[in-house]
Amino acid sequence: MGHTAAIAGASGYAGGELLRLLLGHPEISIGAVTAGGNAGTPLIQHQPHLLPLADRILAPTTVEELRGHDVVYLALPHGQSADIAQQLGDDTLVVDCGADFRLNDAAAWERFYGTPHAGTWPYGLPELPGQRERLAGARRVAVPGCHVTVATLALFPGLAEQLVEPDLTVVAVTGTSGAGKAPKPNLVGSEVMGALSPYGVGGTHRHNPEIIQNLTAVTGEPVRLSFTPVLAPLPRGILATCTAPLKEGATAERVRAAYQTAYADEPFVHLLPEGTWPSTAMTLAANTTLVQVTVDPDAGRMVAVAALDNLTKGTAGGAVQSTNLALGLPEDTGLPLAAVAP
Amino acid sequence: MGHTAAIAGASGYAGGELLRLLLGHPEISIGAVTAGGNAGTPLIQHQPHLLPLADRILAPTTVEELRGHDVVYLALPHGQSADIAQQLGDDTLVVDCGADFRLNDAAAWERFYGTPHAGTWPYGLPELPGQRERLAGARRVAVPGCHVTVATLALFPGLAEQLVEPDLTVVAVTGTSGAGKAPKPNLVGSEVMGALSPYGVGGTHRHNPEIIQNLTAVTGEPVRLSFTPVLAPLPRGILATCTAPLKEGATAERVRAAYQTAYADEPFVHLLPEGTWPSTAMTLAANTTLVQVTVDPDAGRMVAVAALDNLTKGTAGGAVQSTNLALGLPEDTGLPLAAVAP
Amino acid sequence: MGHTAAIAGASGYAGGELLRLLLGHPEISIGAVTAGGNAGTPLIQHQPHLLPLADRILAPTTVEELRGHDVVYLALPHGQSADIAQQLGDDTLVVDCGADFRLNDAAAWERFYGTPHAGTWPYGLPELPGQRERLAGARRVAVPGCHVTVATLALFPGLAEQLVEPDLTVVAVTGTSGAGKAPKPNLVGSEVMGALSPYGVGGTHRHNPEIIQNLTAVTGEPVRLSFTPVLAPLPRGILATCTAPLKEGATAERVRAAYQTAYADEPFVHLLPEGTWPSTAMTLAANTTLVQVTVDPDAGRMVAVAALDNLTKGTAGGAVQSTNLALGLPEDTGLPLAAVAP
Amino acid sequence: MGHTAAIAGASGYAGGELLRLLLGHPEISIGAVTAGGNAGTPLIQHQPHLLPLADRILAPTTVEELRGHDVVYLALPHGQSADIAQQLGDDTLVVDCGADFRLNDAAAWERFYGTPHAGTWPYGLPELPGQRERLAGARRVAVPGCHVTVATLALFPGLAEQLVEPDLTVVAVTGTSGAGKAPKPNLVGSEVMGALSPYGVGGTHRHNPEIIQNLTAVTGEPVRLSFTPVLAPLPRGILATCTAPLKEGATAERVRAAYQTAYADEPFVHLLPEGTWPSTAMTLAANTTLVQVTVDPDAGRMVAVAALDNLTKGTAGGAVQSTNLALGLPEDTGLPLAAVAP
Repeated sequence: MGHTAAIAGASGYAGGELLRLLLGHPEISIGAVTAGGNAGTPLIQHQPHLLPLADRILAPTTVEELRGHDVVYLALPHGQSADIAQQLGDDTLVVDCGADFRLNDAAAWERFYGTPHAGTWPYGLPELPGQRERLAGARRVAVPGCHVTVATLALFPGLAEQLVEPDLTVVAVTGTSGAGKAPKPNLVGSEVMGALSPYGVGGTHRHNPEIIQNLTAVTGEPVRLSFTPVLAPLPRGILATCTAPLKEGATAERVRAAYQTAYADEPFVHLLPEGTWPSTAMTLAANTTLVQVTVDPDAGRMVAVAALDNLTKGTAGGAVQSTNLALGLPEDTGLPLAAVAP
Repeated sequence: MGHTAAIAGASGYAGGELLRLLLGHPEISIGAVTAGGNAGTPLIQHQPHLLPLADRILAPTTVEELRGHDVVYLALPHGQSADIAQQLGDDTLVVDCGADFRLNDAAAWERFYGTPHAGTWPYGLPELPGQRERLAGARRVAVPGCHVTVATLALFPGLAEQLVEPDLTVVAVTGTSGAGKAPKPNLVGSEVMGALSPYGVGGTHRHNPEIIQNLTAVTGEPVRLSFTPVLAPLPRGILATCTAPLKEGATAERVRAAYQTAYADEPFVHLLPEGTWPSTAMTLAANTTLVQVTVDPDAGRMVAVAALDNLTKGTAGGAVQSTNLALGLPEDTGLPLAAVAP
Repeated sequence: MGHTAAIAGASGYAGGELLRLLLGHPEISIGAVTAGGNAGTPLIQHQPHLLPLADRILAPTTVEELRGHDVVYLALPHGQSADIAQQLGDDTLVVDCGADFRLNDAAAWERFYGTPHAGTWPYGLPELPGQRERLAGARRVAVPGCHVTVATLALFPGLAEQLVEPDLTVVAVTGTSGAGKAPKPNLVGSEVMGALSPYGVGGTHRHNPEIIQNLTAVTGEPVRLSFTPVLAPLPRGILATCTAPLKEGATAERVRAAYQTAYADEPFVHLLPEGTWPSTAMTLAANTTLVQVTVDPDAGRMVAVAALDNLTKGTAGGAVQSTNLALGLPEDTGLPLAAVAP
Repeated sequence: MGHTAAIAGASGYAGGELLRLLLGHPEISIGAVTAGGNAGTPLIQHQPHLLPLADRILAPTTVEELRGHDVVYLALPHGQSADIAQQLGDDTLVVDCGADFRLNDAAAWERFYGTPHAGTWPYGLPELPGQRERLAGARRVAVPGCHVTVATLALFPGLAEQLVEPDLTVVAVTGTSGAGKAPKPNLVGSEVMGALSPYGVGGTHRHNPEIIQNLTAVTGEPVRLSFTPVLAPLPRGILATCTAPLKEGATAERVRAAYQTAYADEPFVHLLPEGTWPSTAMTLAANTTLVQVTVDPDAGRMVAVAALDNLTKGTAGGAVQSTNLALGLPEDTGLPLAAVAP
């Protein structure tokens, strides 16, 4: 147990999943667990599935509580990370599961979030070209949004190899935990079960500019993206169906080869055998992303589908994966490859 | 009760929904109920929710049993309708919920279904331009596929008004009842709950040519379509997210006006107020389709979303709606506008 | 359309189901729809499944708005009905879906509800012996609680015929809509899906004294009841599993005969054929209760199971059924016998 | 990795959960994986969530394939274990997840299973008094049924301390995975979602005699049991609501003390704090059982509720827990205490 970690925002879903994963991590022990309004209450009241932490009390989310750990995870509402990170100093690894430091483009930040841009941190998606190196030894990590991870991993190999036009459509069907734990009328169970409903339609979702940022970087061309998330009745999981027009000369073989090459050595991203399509059920509680791709010759499009667990690879697992790289641990330390099914 | 109806395939989901709707239809009474392998067993064993029919026994699906009714509904596996219809004669209204008579193009039929083309019947989607007139007094009706109804209604006004390029993407998230009642490994409840999984990806789904047929007819140009259905954990409902590149000069106002005009007088298709998006939960057990449309200027696309109940407006309700037109009854006779929620 | 009805509490689940049923009722037209905090907003915003009422605005719940209708339905929080009812006068039929007037025993009321007892109205469970007569022409009706309806109908024939000891156990598994629409942490979809959880354990649920009241009346002996509701991941439906020790001489035949006799002429309560057990899926959106009973000789117990839709027969359908009796209409007017499935 | 294990029946749900747990077990490595009809196909085709085993092919379930491992897990249909176990010899630890060797009473076996009794093995429920000692060093283990584990753990402390009469009612609401993976009409997803349905009512379920056996052993008196399982729409989890009449002098304090004493040192069974009731959502994929108990003075009953994951503590986790004891490993080796939520 070489390292200690504090978790800010430990009463929410991202915080809970971080704790679950860290309980199984052989090199990181759990230090302070903090919260905002829930400070002072027992953690188990908010995370009743985490029996090994039944004796923990939530401390307030202050720099004093977080200081002195090797790693500090921030699972906070947008806008709260910058101040905390600045005070923690550069010897602490700060891993932000929020959006504050994900975007390079201050104008895009301000358009989608409406507040001043706090800055940009090394981006916690190790599978992107060159990113693993940037994360090695980093002391700040911005964990990607869950929709961003799944869309980026579904699309980038085709774009990087210039096999498709950067004119993308993504429909990401998602479970409800991505919307968080706070009770809202549209998230009540009676409303959710039996309902398929889109949100953030027409380019208004905050994950839009982040997907564009990632994919522009790999293709070098301006990317156009139509992104629609759809809420579905399951707690966890995202399935993204992505299309892009084929460039001339882009055959099914070349497309498949691009994905095979991109993911051959990845520990957590798997290109499925031809004919097998991803399902979120194959990823529950695992740090994996499953990908399949095909070519639709009549439509003139590549169709790529990826599935992951939004709380694991999409948030907390991705955060721990980047932590491992930043700390110089084997990248897969403490991260489950096998999912829970059925 | 001026008319009598027989239902062939009464033990399946489409048959069950037909019976439920006809029980509430003031002008049609239920005659013979027939089945294949289930013939000889009580209907209530297969449709335990239809208490008013608790004394009915399933007859075998033969021309003898079906003959003598004013309307015969066929909810049969593909390939069985032609022979029955031919023997029934032209004084019987035959409404086929199967695919056999939906396609105009024999080559498309043979490519997707692998059998000889049986022919083409008047197409049971009254909302398509000119279709209501063709259905008036018809004695044969081919009911559209459920994915086809939702995609066609989501897209056709924009295409008909030449506001978008006929280069379409459709992702249709769907409940499980569309896959039918026969037990298959991937449809077992334990597998379905918690799972989002695509099928028929890459232009291989049989509803592909039918969507293309409908939309080519309204636009007059060749249509390219990328269609991906996704199975989700709910029994009923389809939500289709559809995009198409905007043509030059296609503004948000013109797009909205096209949809308003198209659906202003439709009894069952409703364009929602701006900012409200359809959910399948608003359509459960109703014969309605809810539509919303927007323009994504950054992506240069129209995004249209439609929701319906695949067994009601998507199959049995659509069948009864066309029946009403064919029989000269008011189009909305016996068809629920209010859904069941939550 | 001889009668008009106002609905107070029209933005909640009970109010929504009342509206859905009244839309299909040939003798009652919908007048004022009122709400508390939601007054002034469009009804469709809260009940987006009720398209035929898309032009209605919620009025405030005041006597002025409710007055002048033949029937006033109250779907309000406990404690608000007495004052309104008093001001409405005796020529108005007031049907209260809340608890205020269900209990005879003021002490039981005060123990379970903590407020002064408002009084007792004719009880809206026509299937209880003698109750249909009391409802004929009534001008006040107290609609039973949903758990009460299902437990009472499961158990009373065995108790009335003195076949079982009045020492009862009831476990009622229920969907989430019974808990209402207000967002609470434990009702968030992410928490509800995948969860089975008991509540009100150990005799603390407010439906306890009402079940006891009903069953004491039929047996004439003091009733002891262990009642445990369990929340399950579905929007609608209650399945109650009820047991009671067999009295001497109580055979399987006599037990079955008691239920057959009790329900032979009931329009909405059905004893299923031997060997078939009720499922909530057979009752969705219908005004039915399905019952089965058996004898477990080793345990020395009768086991009776009943299923219903908590919003239909368990609340709004029961309310309309009693309304029909009070108004002198055929009891089944406008009430669906066929359920929605799957 | 001191030990090797073979899994017979590796393509089913119990087999899949065994594999998932063994992948995380530091002292047991996975050897042969075998199946019946699925032999010769890739394991990943049946367990697509187990990526680390993606290269495994299912061997046929024969003694030759199973021999030579330190542990052999049998997850087979009833009746197949005896023959295999006999041929494997006494140096192999054989852990049977099936029913064949659970019952002491040959007559009870034959009544409920209809075949000759194969014998009785050490019973894999370490929490029962004296059972941990019997499992230490055992070479045969019969893993309890899932309903049996939850009911026994909910009830035995009260019975062992003579606080309640042995006249028990148990209603166990359960997810669908307990019914297995084989597609059957009533298990199709469309049928399961939205449905609560009892089965094996009236003392006919095969887990009945096993519960009676366990509880008779702790109380010393003949036990009478009314047991009703109810199928609910979730893949995993059982919640058992259990009641028994209080004996004279059995106070709430004494009841609580009995449970506190029984479970104080148990690694996997937790008595929750007063006022907190178990939910299956707290146990998903963990080897835990959560228990709460109260006294209902009006009903004169103890009410005890327990929750577990039927595939983990209810089957595969219980099997590994007993394996650890039999092999002399720490009892909690490789077994998750933290659950997956939401």
